[in-house]
Amino acid sequence: MSVTIEQPPRRGRRAGSSNTRDEILAAAKKSFATDGFAATTIRKIAKDAGVDPALVMQFYGTKEVLFAASLAVSADALTRMSEAFEGPVEGLGWRVTRAFLTLWEQKSGDGEALMAMQRAAMSSEVAAAQLRDFVQYRIVEVFSPKLHARSDAALRAGLATSMLVGVIVSRNIVRIPLIAEVEQEAVIELLGASIQTILVG
Amino acid sequence: MSVTIEQPPRRGRRAGSSNTRDEILAAAKKSFATDGFAATTIRKIAKDAGVDPALVMQFYGTKEVLFAASLAVSADALTRMSEAFEGPVEGLGWRVTRAFLTLWEQKSGDGEALMAMQRAAMSSEVAAAQLRDFVQYRIVEVFSPKLHARSDAALRAGLATSMLVGVIVSRNIVRIPLIAEVEQEAVIELLGASIQTILVG
Repeated sequence: MSVTIEQPPRRGRRAGSSNTRDEILAAAKKSFATDGFAATTIRKIAKDAGVDPALVMQFYGTKEVLFAASLAVSADALTRMSEAFEGPVEGLGWRVTRAFLTLWEQKSGDGEALMAMQRAAMSSEVAAAQLRDFVQYRIVEVFSPKLHARSDAALRAGLATSMLVGVIVSRNIVRIPLIAEVEQEAVIELLGASIQTILVG
Repeated sequence: MSVTIEQPPRRGRRAGSSNTRDEILAAAKKSFATDGFAATTIRKIAKDAGVDPALVMQFYGTKEVLFAASLAVSADALTRMSEAFEGPVEGLGWRVTRAFLTLWEQKSGDGEALMAMQRAAMSSEVAAAQLRDFVQYRIVEVFSPKLHARSDAALRAGLATSMLVGVIVSRNIVRIPLIAEVEQEAVIELLGASIQTILVG
C-alpha cells in the first residue's frame, strides 16, 4: 500500500528522512495490526521505529491520520466524511449520503483504499480488529458530537455509517444490477431520506 | 457445505436416491458458479447430473430453493425473509428489520450460511457473480411486488436489503463495539424507522 498523505514542507535537509517516514509507517502498520487502534500509542510507534515521538507528530500530525495513512486513505478523505455531519439539520441525511457515496465510489485513490479496507475486514480477523477501534473512534469522537443533544447519537451515527457502507458494497462489490445501474443522484435522493430518519428522526 | 433443505417424503424405495440428490446438488453448485443464477436452468442441471428434470423438481421444487440449498440456506429462511414484506404498511420497516436481524444473527444454521455467503461475495468475484443474479431475482420478483403501486419499489427494496446487511456486518463481522453491544430490540426500533422510510416514505 502506498502513502497518500501529503508530505509537510521540508525544514532544511535531513539525511534519510524519507526512509524514516517509511520506517514510522511500517512500525505503525505493525502496531495497529497487533494491538488495534486504541492500544497503539505514538510513543510506542516512535520507539519501534527508533525515532523521537516529536518526529512522528511532525510527519503525521495525529494517530488518526497515521492510521489512515497505514490504510492508504488520505487525511482529506477523513475530513470530508466528518464535515458532512456539520451544518443545518434539514439536509443532514442527504449531505452525509452524498459525501460517503462520492468518496467511496471514486475510481482511484481514497475510493480504492476504502474498498480494499472493507474487503479485508470481511475476510480477515486481523483486519477487522484493526478497523474496529478506529471506526468506533471516528463514530464516537468525530461524528456523533455533531449530532448534539441526543443520548443515542453515537448509535445513530454508527447505524447510518453501516447502512451507507452496505449500499456501497451492493453497488460496487456484489454489484446487484438494480442498485448498481441507478445514477448516484437517484440513490442519494432515496437513501438520504432514510439516513435523515436514522440521524435525526 | 451441507444441505439443509428438508427431504420430501420418500415414495417407495429408490436405489441410490440419496446419492442422486447429492449429484444434483453438485451439478447445481457448479452451474450456478460458472453461469450465474439467471443463466442456469433445471434442464441443464438435470443433464449434468444425468437425471430427469422431473427428479430435480421432485427433490428441490424450484431453482430458487436449489440455489439456496447450494449455499446451505434453508427454504424456510427464504420464506421468512419474503413474508416479512407482507401485511399492513404501518409496521413494514420494523417487521423486515426484525426478520433479517433474527435470521442472520442466528448462531448456527441459516445465520452461519448467510454470513459465509456474504463474506465469500466480498472477496471472491466468482461468489459475487453467483450471488448477484439471485439477490436481484429475490428483490425484483419476490420482495418488491409486495410494495405494490410504486414505480421504484425494486430500488427501495434493494436499498433496504443492502442497508440491513450493512448493519449486520458491522454488528457481527467487523463488530464495531457501539453497534455490536446494543440489544437487538434497540437496534430494531431505530433501524426499523429508517427502513420504513426507504420502503414506504
